[in-house]
Amino acid sequence: MRMAELSTVSGVPIPTIKYYLREGLLPAGDRTSATQATYDDAHVRRLRVIRALLDTGASVAGTRHVLATLDEPPEDPTELLGAAHAAAAPTSAFEISTSEAESLADRLGFSLDSCDHDRLADVARALHVLGQAGFEVPDDVMTTYVAHMKAIASAEIAGTPIADPEESVRYVVLGTTLIEPLLLALRRMAQQVESRELFSPDE
Amino acid sequence: MRMAELSTVSGVPIPTIKYYLREGLLPAGDRTSATQATYDDAHVRRLRVIRALLDTGASVAGTRHVLATLDEPPEDPTELLGAAHAAAAPTSAFEISTSEAESLADRLGFSLDSCDHDRLADVARALHVLGQAGFEVPDDVMTTYVAHMKAIASAEIAGTPIADPEESVRYVVLGTTLIEPLLLALRRMAQQVESRELFSPDE
Repeated sequence: MRMAELSTVSGVPIPTIKYYLREGLLPAGDRTSATQATYDDAHVRRLRVIRALLDTGASVAGTRHVLATLDEPPEDPTELLGAAHAAAAPTSAFEISTSEAESLADRLGFSLDSCDHDRLADVARALHVLGQAGFEVPDDVMTTYVAHMKAIASAEIAGTPIADPEESVRYVVLGTTLIEPLLLALRRMAQQVESRELFSPDE
Repeated sequence: MRMAELSTVSGVPIPTIKYYLREGLLPAGDRTSATQATYDDAHVRRLRVIRALLDTGASVAGTRHVLATLDEPPEDPTELLGAAHAAAAPTSAFEISTSEAESLADRLGFSLDSCDHDRLADVARALHVLGQAGFEVPDDVMTTYVAHMKAIASAEIAGTPIADPEESVRYVVLGTTLIEPLLLALRRMAQQVESRELFSPDE
């Protein structure tokens, strides 16, 4: 199909498609002349993924990383999720020492050996920001958070379609990033429902 | 204290403090002359909250909303969490019909009466973005998400310090927003640990 049809089918305006092409997010079409190219269903699917990533607040650079991982998945499956996380959230901007990492892993109930340093640093950063705002997370609440996030992660990882490597990468990379707004929206909804019950004058 | 000392104590550069004053995020100090004012510990605490909110990705306008709710909490406690959510995430940008709201509430296992329409619309939006990327959430995974988010919300709401209204607003408004990066970081860490176990060649 021509670009005009790609725009109609995908619902993405032509100037935006051209921008994605220039930014290297969307692969070039098959060139049919000096000024024209044709596009196929893979371009439509790719446009949907680009929109979804940008809609969840990913930067253009972050989106480019995620797409590159989708296109060239690591050969070693143990690196799969690491690559997915790196794509969705690059190297942590927060620095922690080995002993800080050790004591944090211990507090969370993980063994230091099984933890990626960058992922621990992200948790440390979130706690640091909370502390800066004078907000401490009590140990029992932290235990609740860890237990439920472990249960969620366990169900998600168990659902990875490992028999199909391509689908597996897609599941991990997109699932990691795109599920986040869903989880946060569900928490806020559940808080609102619980709060209404707690504060209801009829109770 | 003078502005220079406020800057030293809080670690926020003077031009940034002036910017927060202009934007109405930080209340003016007590004016001691035409060009000087004094600040107190409340300004230091407020600066920490401003930094924490902006660090978690809140906009200046969103931060102003959250701070306004902290300064003037609603009188009716049943409105507390609604105001906190509205401050942290204003009216949903996504529109759903009453029948869509009904079927979504049903799918999630909530009664429509107890759900705020905007919070349901946020969930619908997250599902829409996932669908656009060709990513469906299976019913059993959704059930897992809802169950764990309800458990988290329940623990959080039960911990609200309702005896102290000012502390209670602070807890709800900041807890809603600032805990989000912590939960997401914990999920990613748990995924990485689980994934390493699943894909480990020794298992």
